Amino acid sequence: MKQTFQVDLRLAESSTFITQLALSQVRLSHNAAFPWLLLIPQQDSLIEVIDLSPHDQHLLIQEIALVSQVMQKLFHPDKLNIATLGNLVPQLHIHIIARYQNDGAWPHPVWNSGVMKNYEPEQKLCRIDLIQTALRQAC
Amino acid sequence: MKQTFQVDLRLAESSTFITQLALSQVRLSHNAAFPWLLLIPQQDSLIEVIDLSPHDQHLLIQEIALVSQVMQKLFHPDKLNIATLGNLVPQLHIHIIARYQNDGAWPHPVWNSGVMKNYEPEQKLCRIDLIQTALRQAC
Repeated sequence: MKQTFQVDLRLAESSTFITQLALSQVRLSHNAAFPWLLLIPQQDSLIEVIDLSPHDQHLLIQEIALVSQVMQKLFHPDKLNIATLGNLVPQLHIHIIARYQNDGAWPHPVWNSGVMKNYEPEQKLCRIDLIQTALRQAC
Repeated sequence: MKQTFQVDLRLAESSTFITQLALSQVRLSHNAAFPWLLLIPQQDSLIEVIDLSPHDQHLLIQEIALVSQVMQKLFHPDKLNIATLGNLVPQLHIHIIARYQNDGAWPHPVWNSGVMKNYEPEQKLCRIDLIQTALRQAC
């Protein structure tokens, strides 16, 4: 399955690859207004969580927990927002977003909030490196 | 733990108890604009998914999958939206919402959409009964 798997173009263009876990690819959203990661399970034709086997559902929650721990350690958010929506891009992907009481969208969800910031190229590389290192240490 | 557990008042007032699973209470949101269920793990002081033990994280994803299957069977949505946000009500709760391309908020998330409809009392009882029966059959 993994050989043929392709990340949806809209996800690929709005995020950058960080690392590969057992089930999912971890990516950094290009919206720098929030520390915002994506988990994309690398199997073809996934839309809903229940399209994964029970074994892979367990893997998914383990990877959500791993990324959540890294987000808490690195970014000390007031709250994590975790969601799989897929109304615009059906390919199964899970958002894990660090939220702060003083971020531009609080207390509302980030999607459709209009709050958007671009990364400086160096800042993006630095953040990816930081997350890669933290994930490696936590695994 | 279960004896002292209390559902946050804001969640209690905006949803109705349907049934109790191994970990979570299942509740029906009072917003009739969408088939919308809540899973609330019944342990004190939970805020993030990672506040659950790894064992209970597995139970949670199993219960998310169970409720997802029931939602698909009963409501045939175009997409399920599954999320834990907690910016307004920190007590850990997971939204599982059946979405349709012709619902009032599509393709945006339901939160903060302003799309709200009340249930007729009989309609609410009927829906709760339907979901209770489907969950019992699926367990």
